[in-house]
Amino acid sequence: MPTYQAPIRDYQFILNELLNVYQYTDLKGFDEFDSELVDAILQGVADFTTEVMLPLNASGDLQGCKLEDGKVITPDGFIDAYQQYVDNGWATLTCDVEYGGQGLPEVVGVFATEMKSSTNMAFAMYPGLTHGAYAAIHAHGSDELKNKYLPKLVSGEWTGTMNLTESHAGTDLALLRTKAEPVEDGLFAISGEKIFISSGDHDLAENIVHLVLAKLPDAPEGVKGISLFAVPKIMVNGDGSLREANTLHAAALEHKMGIHGNSTCVMVFNNAKGELIGEPHQGLRAMFTMMNQARLGVGIQGLGLSEIAYQNALTYAKERIQGRALSGAKQTEQKADSILVHGDVRRMLLSQKALNQGARALMGQQALWLDQAERNVDTVKAKQAHAIAALFTPIVKGFVTDQGFKACVDAQQVFGGHGYINEWGMEQFVRDCRIAMIYEGTNGVQALDLVGRKLLSDKGAALMAWSEMVKSFIEQHAGNDDMQPFIGGLMKAAADLERATGYIVKAAQTNPDLIGAASMAYMQILGITSLAWMWARMAATSLEALANGSDDTAFYQEKLKTAKFYMGYWAVQTGSLARQIEASSQDIVEFEEELF
Amino acid sequence: MPTYQAPIRDYQFILNELLNVYQYTDLKGFDEFDSELVDAILQGVADFTTEVMLPLNASGDLQGCKLEDGKVITPDGFIDAYQQYVDNGWATLTCDVEYGGQGLPEVVGVFATEMKSSTNMAFAMYPGLTHGAYAAIHAHGSDELKNKYLPKLVSGEWTGTMNLTESHAGTDLALLRTKAEPVEDGLFAISGEKIFISSGDHDLAENIVHLVLAKLPDAPEGVKGISLFAVPKIMVNGDGSLREANTLHAAALEHKMGIHGNSTCVMVFNNAKGELIGEPHQGLRAMFTMMNQARLGVGIQGLGLSEIAYQNALTYAKERIQGRALSGAKQTEQKADSILVHGDVRRMLLSQKALNQGARALMGQQALWLDQAERNVDTVKAKQAHAIAALFTPIVKGFVTDQGFKACVDAQQVFGGHGYINEWGMEQFVRDCRIAMIYEGTNGVQALDLVGRKLLSDKGAALMAWSEMVKSFIEQHAGNDDMQPFIGGLMKAAADLERATGYIVKAAQTNPDLIGAASMAYMQILGITSLAWMWARMAATSLEALANGSDDTAFYQEKLKTAKFYMGYWAVQTGSLARQIEASSQDIVEFEEELF
Repeated sequence: MPTYQAPIRDYQFILNELLNVYQYTDLKGFDEFDSELVDAILQGVADFTTEVMLPLNASGDLQGCKLEDGKVITPDGFIDAYQQYVDNGWATLTCDVEYGGQGLPEVVGVFATEMKSSTNMAFAMYPGLTHGAYAAIHAHGSDELKNKYLPKLVSGEWTGTMNLTESHAGTDLALLRTKAEPVEDGLFAISGEKIFISSGDHDLAENIVHLVLAKLPDAPEGVKGISLFAVPKIMVNGDGSLREANTLHAAALEHKMGIHGNSTCVMVFNNAKGELIGEPHQGLRAMFTMMNQARLGVGIQGLGLSEIAYQNALTYAKERIQGRALSGAKQTEQKADSILVHGDVRRMLLSQKALNQGARALMGQQALWLDQAERNVDTVKAKQAHAIAALFTPIVKGFVTDQGFKACVDAQQVFGGHGYINEWGMEQFVRDCRIAMIYEGTNGVQALDLVGRKLLSDKGAALMAWSEMVKSFIEQHAGNDDMQPFIGGLMKAAADLERATGYIVKAAQTNPDLIGAASMAYMQILGITSLAWMWARMAATSLEALANGSDDTAFYQEKLKTAKFYMGYWAVQTGSLARQIEASSQDIVEFEEELF
Repeated sequence: MPTYQAPIRDYQFILNELLNVYQYTDLKGFDEFDSELVDAILQGVADFTTEVMLPLNASGDLQGCKLEDGKVITPDGFIDAYQQYVDNGWATLTCDVEYGGQGLPEVVGVFATEMKSSTNMAFAMYPGLTHGAYAAIHAHGSDELKNKYLPKLVSGEWTGTMNLTESHAGTDLALLRTKAEPVEDGLFAISGEKIFISSGDHDLAENIVHLVLAKLPDAPEGVKGISLFAVPKIMVNGDGSLREANTLHAAALEHKMGIHGNSTCVMVFNNAKGELIGEPHQGLRAMFTMMNQARLGVGIQGLGLSEIAYQNALTYAKERIQGRALSGAKQTEQKADSILVHGDVRRMLLSQKALNQGARALMGQQALWLDQAERNVDTVKAKQAHAIAALFTPIVKGFVTDQGFKACVDAQQVFGGHGYINEWGMEQFVRDCRIAMIYEGTNGVQALDLVGRKLLSDKGAALMAWSEMVKSFIEQHAGNDDMQPFIGGLMKAAADLERATGYIVKAAQTNPDLIGAASMAYMQILGITSLAWMWARMAATSLEALANGSDDTAFYQEKLKTAKFYMGYWAVQTGSLARQIEASSQDIVEFEEELF
């Protein structure tokens, strides 16, 4: 059975030292918390996830969800664990205090989410989707709607879902067929079938608020004709009390590669009554405003699984004895050395470690940008932060889940044959992690969003703003000898990024299809470069701590050595990626369909 | 449900045009077949695999094997399909005519294996393991043993297994605990427990011949004390007739990530009677002589799954409509364009296509080297061929399964959410393919074998012999303008390979642990370079066919364009890999265990 140790020390390093989040007293609500409170909360989540969620992860996978007599039954133990989750108030952390939330910033919430994803991703998706529904109603709903739904969604007494996909329409929502007809009392009758609905039905809560994209009768063609509705499983009175059941149901459970503990449903709406959220035909815009948060959440799943996979692979590598080091026996008291002596096992583990800690720091930075976008009273600064967060959304989602999946595969590989059987739990991490590359916009869509929307639509303004941060960091540390290995690696990656950006900008003017062909390599280059930036910053922070006489020298030495490894192993990859863009995009675009 | 079209035209291209195998009349038995016979055989296997094996692939995965009352039951339909397999004579293709085989060379057998792996890898493993047992007895058994076991193993009436792994001893066989005690009649009593035994027990055949590694009482310590035994499930008389059951059984079935249709067993031997194969204490050597063939077989699984995954992803990409091309609508008669217009979808598909066709050509080349090693009457030439085949064994196994798995993941990605659910079959390909990176020596072990044993132990002689082939090919075509894109790409990759080889050779003299740290990147560089060689050769062959006025222009144009894509997309990756070796190996080796 996999074990888990929450990386609390790393969270503290990021919050207190790297990002120094407690300095941001100009952000609304940031004066309401301090490191002591945050430490207590993170430790509480660590305990809950390790003691309650982790023990249900393998059993939930094995047992899966069942659909019986039209009702979905979650795996054994989920009901009780969810009740504890609600009772402990873990659902409320980052929600608005006005509706019963604790008002904590995203930069704290992001780490709570990581621990939940590490220990039981399928379970974590029930509150995860609820938070999405909460955020949509909170941002776009009328006061009436907010008062009706938010208190119960915040507390976790009710859960929420997102109903977007139909069997013929995944990425391209313009093709949706689900209809909404206005009926009495400002209600709408929703009819249609949605697929891949995570947490679509279950037995954890007394009600489920489905957020559904549908078309009104007078809807314009395409994505400008989609509206968003709140469609509860059980109808709700204005005061929040329950009425009769709505005319909707889970018609089937999807049989999936992983996340078996989460009920992924085919949902059928048969003249189900719903209320409009926001303006008619503005549903897609309403969904998009939550996208940065939602995609950050998926990115964190990639990180969370990579982290627990790494921890268990490391433990195994230390305990498993096989063969001898190439340079001669290291543990002569044993019949063989632990496999951690082998260069390729070390390589896999260090690659995972450098990814996880680098991505975690980037997640913290991204969450802080989102907090600044939402909470800075200075609207110019808020807007700038929002633009940079939007630029990095495809990175935290697309790059981190791609690499997080590969890291899970490597962690599984450390176990040899034992990694392939269920017993050790490693193959579940691979299966669960795989979905993070697909949902909330496939990683191909993320890459396209990056080059098409985020990079080009503002003429590169957000990228330039971030590049200025990188440049000023480099200038600040260029004179420090101890920083040379990190500054050198960062500069090389940044130069490849600039070269690749030049290609994209030029391609946009000649043949836009080239951008699509180059997009995935470009996303990787920006991802690797942004982690090089985080690692160089972590190195600088660690050197400073050591210079200031910190007695936690092992922690900072670990950071410095991992940073150095990152530069030699990860950051060197940008050169070939930039060349790949230049050398293959044209061939990709011009390859005739009939020759495939 | 996935469909499959056997790549017969590609096989013909490789056999008839690229390798021109029918010229090798100096190889024993090569005069017994011609292209007409081979075409008929390949078409027969194509029909059988598509019509009989493929329909049982998804159901076999879903149903899996069961252990009831000590007996293993295979999925519905497997018994009948296996009977047809035996009746049609497919088990006998590459076996010795002396024992009822058809004596076909490996270079034909390799493609039959690919089709079997594509359509039903779990099923194909039953005859696959049988062939391994056949080969071991054939190479090392006494005449008595051969006469007793081979006819039934060749026909497929009986199946075989390989019993190596114990729970504490996978890669490091020196740690084995299974014991063999001499008893009456030259027999041995075998006792111990083996795990991960593919096809360990089942209901497909009346008998199973287990090949078991065990230690004799007087065995020296370590790998030099391991002997190989034939231990039948049902005892056998000298004339091949059956006696009573032996004292061995399947104690459990392993619960695995994939290949559910194959019975992976925990086998318990309780004073089971067995016969020694070859000399005492020489068991590991006996196993190693079959290793090149066995590892080629696993590499082909990686290729086979990548091929069927590609075919289905391509079909889906052509049929699925979502969004519009970045350069404007392409299929204006539809509400959206097929997703094949999107650059990133094309990139994924072309990457798979270039890998599959390149790897297939390399598999053919490798099989031909193995044939030359075994059948060339000129022992010097046979030895040379053997050394080169040994060098490329880690490539066809390690490189091809690593990349084949990634290709399956990409093919699944093309399906978006539909790739994650069982229904479309794509996630099964990913789960099944994953084991090929692990068994028959993990890919990390392959990489170590490459740099430690194959590259250094003969002072680079095999690599130099192959490099000479590459150089002479380059010289031959350097003057041809049409060959420039291919020669250029190949030369660049070969230069990076030389640079990386230099690092390895130097590292061996300073700190051998560095070799391990660099091994995986090195294996990738050699893999990419060897496929660049195959692609350049395929381009030359295609240009020649077009110059000779072939009317199959689409086929050769496809090859030329894919070759060009390979050079711009795959071959450019060697530069960063070489840099990675230089920049990270030292850090990997020196990272303190307590800082991980």
